[in-house]
Amino acid sequence: MSIHIHHIAIVVDDLDEALAFYQQALGLTLAERRAVPEEEVEIAFLPAGEGEIELLRPLDDRSGVARFLAKRGEGVHHVCLRVDDVEAAMARLQAAGAHLLSETPQVNPHGVRYVFVHPKSAHGVLVELYEVKGDE
Amino acid sequence: MSIHIHHIAIVVDDLDEALAFYQQALGLTLAERRAVPEEEVEIAFLPAGEGEIELLRPLDDRSGVARFLAKRGEGVHHVCLRVDDVEAAMARLQAAGAHLLSETPQVNPHGVRYVFVHPKSAHGVLVELYEVKGDE
Repeated sequence: MSIHIHHIAIVVDDLDEALAFYQQALGLTLAERRAVPEEEVEIAFLPAGEGEIELLRPLDDRSGVARFLAKRGEGVHHVCLRVDDVEAAMARLQAAGAHLLSETPQVNPHGVRYVFVHPKSAHGVLVELYEVKGDE
Repeated sequence: MSIHIHHIAIVVDDLDEALAFYQQALGLTLAERRAVPEEEVEIAFLPAGEGEIELLRPLDDRSGVARFLAKRGEGVHHVCLRVDDVEAAMARLQAAGAHLLSETPQVNPHGVRYVFVHPKSAHGVLVELYEVKGDE
């Protein structure tokens, strides 16, 4: 099984200000920015080699991302690793006693299957596993 | 200027327990594990595609890493991006008003030049820039 860093998601208060830093000051390039109302966030994608930096801001104060921001402040929200078989990865994690946030893979609007591992199992990190088939 | 994700550093209480999760449960491979007494940490390196996951544990209770762990608990300590010219990156950051943790690049024992950006400038993330010359 191959595992690559897919993205690092950073939750911010103000997406314009955060983009000013990550684009102009740091030199990353904005690939896409869009609201995802079903997840109550606005997201900006900034590729960095084979991975990317994602900046998230909550669209309301009810979502999990909003509660994270209120409790912990700005910073890394989750780390996403791409795997070639999310069910095999889930079976391995469950066999090791790790706590997953869903019992079966979730599916995003692009048809990609993913799952989150609880930060208590992953030593303080909310880890997302994102399935990309045919990963070398 | 090209920028890639170089590594994600995660501070943990117990390196053996953390390695059990990141190797056996998640499926990453340990490339190297060593103490770095001058930085008062023990580090384990787990490659993940072109980047890697680094697990850190403090060797005493005085270091910055130890204070981070005592204050915030286990989790992402810093995000490292590789750049091809650290001084050019620093000039750009300073021009934008970002706060760097050193005025000139630091140099690690391998001769690699690096600098840290203060998390207040980078929206809650301690960002390291690590120079790899000839980066495509």
